[in-house]
Amino acid sequence: MNERKEPIPVTVVGLGAMGMALASAFLAAGHPTTVWNRSAGKADDLVAAGAARAATITEALTASPLVITCLLDYPVLHQVLDPSGGALAGRTLVNLTNGTPEQARETATWAARHDVGYLDGGIMAVPAMIGRPEALVLYSGSQAAFNQHEQTLNRMGGSRYVGADPGSASLYDLALLSAMYGQFAGARHALALVGTENADLPEFTSSLLIPWLTATMIGLPVLAQQDTAQDSDSPSGMQAVAIANIVDASNAQGVDGDLLSHLLIPMRDLIGRRAAGRSLDDLVDLINRPEQGK
Amino acid sequence: MNERKEPIPVTVVGLGAMGMALASAFLAAGHPTTVWNRSAGKADDLVAAGAARAATITEALTASPLVITCLLDYPVLHQVLDPSGGALAGRTLVNLTNGTPEQARETATWAARHDVGYLDGGIMAVPAMIGRPEALVLYSGSQAAFNQHEQTLNRMGGSRYVGADPGSASLYDLALLSAMYGQFAGARHALALVGTENADLPEFTSSLLIPWLTATMIGLPVLAQQDTAQDSDSPSGMQAVAIANIVDASNAQGVDGDLLSHLLIPMRDLIGRRAAGRSLDDLVDLINRPEQGK
Ligand SMILES: NC(=O)c1ccc[n+]([C@@H]2O[C@H](COP(=O)([O-])OP(=O)(O)OC[C@H]3O[C@@H](n4cnc5c(N)ncnc54)[C@H](OP(=O)(O)O)[C@@H]3O)[C@@H](O)[C@H]2O)c1
Ligand SMILES: NC(=O)c1ccc[n+]([C@@H]2O[C@H](COP(=O)([O-])OP(=O)(O)OC[C@H]3O[C@@H](n4cnc5c(N)ncnc54)[C@H](OP(=O)(O)O)[C@@H]3O)[C@@H](O)[C@H]2O)c1
Repeated sequence: MNERKEPIPVTVVGLGAMGMALASAFLAAGHPTTVWNRSAGKADDLVAAGAARAATITEALTASPLVITCLLDYPVLHQVLDPSGGALAGRTLVNLTNGTPEQARETATWAARHDVGYLDGGIMAVPAMIGRPEALVLYSGSQAAFNQHEQTLNRMGGSRYVGADPGSASLYDLALLSAMYGQFAGARHALALVGTENADLPEFTSSLLIPWLTATMIGLPVLAQQDTAQDSDSPSGMQAVAIANIVDASNAQGVDGDLLSHLLIPMRDLIGRRAAGRSLDDLVDLINRPEQGK
Repeated sequence: MNERKEPIPVTVVGLGAMGMALASAFLAAGHPTTVWNRSAGKADDLVAAGAARAATITEALTASPLVITCLLDYPVLHQVLDPSGGALAGRTLVNLTNGTPEQARETATWAARHDVGYLDGGIMAVPAMIGRPEALVLYSGSQAAFNQHEQTLNRMGGSRYVGADPGSASLYDLALLSAMYGQFAGARHALALVGTENADLPEFTSSLLIPWLTATMIGLPVLAQQDTAQDSDSPSGMQAVAIANIVDASNAQGVDGDLLSHLLIPMRDLIGRRAAGRSLDDLVDLINRPEQGK
């Protein structure tokens, strides 16, 4: 019997915004799907669509060879799993709860002790994207478990195995999330600044901000090639002036000083690189100013 | 005589990295091009390619109906122009020096006093892009001056007129630059975090970081629609956990605390939105931690 051809049974533990989307994707692809959630009522729609509601967590864990967990955090994960850990023996656990590399490694050790194949994962998508190949899911840990279940995992989105260290997927996940928060921090400041003049913000966003941030991505491989944030093609004196102008204009327009915090590193680096005479003193002032607002 | 058909004479004042590229673009398009720079030797290559070197700034300003300035900052601009301001009477000044909206408005007033048509501009491109339509240049100020010279200005890049207030181009320019610094701040942190595990950073950048930051731009119109940074589709407790995980993992991996500054606003907002019980105390700790590193 070739299990790869028949959709294998899958259990989803945790039916928050994300777990719900994951379970729906398995159901839609024809997998016998068992679900469990602390607040059992959240399973109602899935059960109406054909899912099996497990009465207990142990029942959920033993219902399928592949168990997916998607909970708020690792303390909750262990609160839910640990009392019934033995029930997972011989199965594969794919944990998609957001956590740190250390938490992932600890959980891999816990899984090994219970004879459980373990993959730790990071979902780089919002629930609405789940089930489409654009929904990237990073995995790390047991290569054997990944190879065995890759086709089933692909029901959730595009699967990418990033290494045997169970902490890797989480490290990459957190790094990418942080990059997104940086993009949003800059965009928020841009919108606040332009918003002081009653500009049409949706128009600004679609016609200038998004095309601009698409163009500036050409700078990212340059950042990646530098051991530390060093040189750049644009003269450093000129950059120092531009950053001082951003801060001056933001202060003049009454923009919340905290919105400037993403400029801290470029300001610090320019000072380290002895920015042009006049600008240097300004920058030392400026770099202290955002702190005072707190 | 229809001046639009014959390339009109243009003067470029300031031959730094950017001014050099601008003058080259006019020359390449067949405009009689006069150049001036404090350090006169920087004009040598342009003169060899057919440009006229002005012996004095007054000679430069009177050589053409359209004068482009691209200098380090506004103090330098006024140091260079003010003694010879009268020579500009009846001409159009297009100032592409980076500055604040206030500096742009002051310079527009100065220009009006000298009977000079004034456009203030912001170049959203690096020198290597100049001359191609992808090199976006924002303009604000005299609509008549823009209409009259649009075709000539298009030699430098794609021209966009953003309003009659001379400060608008500068406001938009600074906003977009700040957005770029946010994107870079997040990317720098991501690279630092992943770099602690000796990952292949160029590979990470091309295969994960850039596609991810392209996908997350879907969130920018959402930011633009909100008066203040409020709601989002992802549960706030879940976001609080993810941000706490980013900070914890960065501390555990020994990443420079200043690289976390772009997270200040999401952390502050989540606290304001009463993030899930356990996480709230953590976050109050975390939000103070990056400050201690300075
Ligand atoms: N939503 C997104 O956009 C998104 C994107 C990428 C990754 N993720 C990740 O997916 C995971 C889940 O996120 P989500 O959006 O589904 O969050 P959510 O909607 O807040 O769901 C939280 C889940 O955790 C459960 N839970 C919380 N405290 C519990 C406890 N003490 N005991 C038992 N169960 C508990 C909840 O059960 P109840 O229903 O009983 O409260 C629910 O199933 C997170 O790690 C998140 O980082 C989410
Ligand atoms: N490079 C870029 O990537 C870029 C991108 C967008 C916008 N811009 C903007 O373009 C403008 C020029 O930048 P850039 O890259 O060309 O800078 P740059 O290479 O540093 O050139 C600075 C220019 O200012 C002149 N200058 C400086 N101090 C002076 C003084 N006291 N008196 C007279 N002239 C003085 C320099 O003359 P000397 O040659 O005699 O020193 C040179 O012409 C800036 O406002 C910048 O923000 C640049």
